[in-house]
Amino acid sequence: MSLPPWRSLITRALHQNRSLVYARYVQLATMRENGFPANRTVVFRGFLDDTNQLKFITDIRSEKAEQISKQSAAEICWYFPNTREQFRITGELILVNADSHPHLQPARIKMWQELSDAARLQFAWPIPGKQRVTKSEAFTPPAPDNIQPLEHFCLLLLEPVKVDHLELRGEPQNRWVYHRNENQEWLTEAINP
Amino acid sequence: MSLPPWRSLITRALHQNRSLVYARYVQLATMRENGFPANRTVVFRGFLDDTNQLKFITDIRSEKAEQISKQSAAEICWYFPNTREQFRITGELILVNADSHPHLQPARIKMWQELSDAARLQFAWPIPGKQRVTKSEAFTPPAPDNIQPLEHFCLLLLEPVKVDHLELRGEPQNRWVYHRNENQEWLTEAINP
Repeated sequence: MSLPPWRSLITRALHQNRSLVYARYVQLATMRENGFPANRTVVFRGFLDDTNQLKFITDIRSEKAEQISKQSAAEICWYFPNTREQFRITGELILVNADSHPHLQPARIKMWQELSDAARLQFAWPIPGKQRVTKSEAFTPPAPDNIQPLEHFCLLLLEPVKVDHLELRGEPQNRWVYHRNENQEWLTEAINP
Repeated sequence: MSLPPWRSLITRALHQNRSLVYARYVQLATMRENGFPANRTVVFRGFLDDTNQLKFITDIRSEKAEQISKQSAAEICWYFPNTREQFRITGELILVNADSHPHLQPARIKMWQELSDAARLQFAWPIPGKQRVTKSEAFTPPAPDNIQPLEHFCLLLLEPVKVDHLELRGEPQNRWVYHRNENQEWLTEAINP
């Protein structure tokens, strides 16, 4: 696979912003059932091998997973503070849970194994978004197995179809849009900022 | 008006993150006509006097303004890096353009007058999102009047109905949701992170 032109721009931005841990945080917009948009911060966890799919994680018990199972369209907004540039990546989300196709399980299991102990522990916490469980033991469960994912754990993949790149630096600003056509080729267009 | 409980939390977060210019950048999710969500960075420009409405600006010629005129539901995601906390603010957007009700014009005009020269100049640039205009003069137009807004200039207001506040610091994390009820009272609930 030849990489689409925006991939090297993301790689460069990640490198130039590597001093900021939160340069890997992106905002993920999805649709609620009532037609309202939802928006929250998620951590970018690399690209899935040999694809352009961005990896994130989520809990099957979260509102986010529920929304995605009903409407997979999404857009992430990724702002890089050091280089003052923004990527808006539009695409379809793929939720990989314990019941997903067997060919997706190795990626899910590998993602689980790469997490920190603290990140894995959160999947053993009480149901996210429900009334707060006040027993503090609920948030200090036994450490889950670090090889086999907990049932709730999902890998979340974003398959991009469009990327809108804005550079605030420069006089004037620069902006490009990258579109994937029906032949899976990426077309580039310079647009007004 | 007594301030809702989440207002002081935003004030505190802005203060504690004041060293970062981009702590005033938030991600605004809206709906496209095709049902896909859209998501982009906008600059928070304070609260409208005596209201809980957040102020932003936009160009009537932008896709964002077009989307909002058709579907006003929105959610902003606001991440504060220094304090490691996130606010998700759900509400309705109000687009204040040159044709809006006269009682909204003073706020629109005041916003215009508070902008920097560079920010005002962008409203005299070519249509955002269209094929790039290559004549460089197009991006160096004469400075617009700094008293009377250009026709394209919009004040954008977000009227919150729900605020979801997550603190990543703390063992475990803390999360609260604030809801406005039909009596315009704000109710607070602690929920699981």
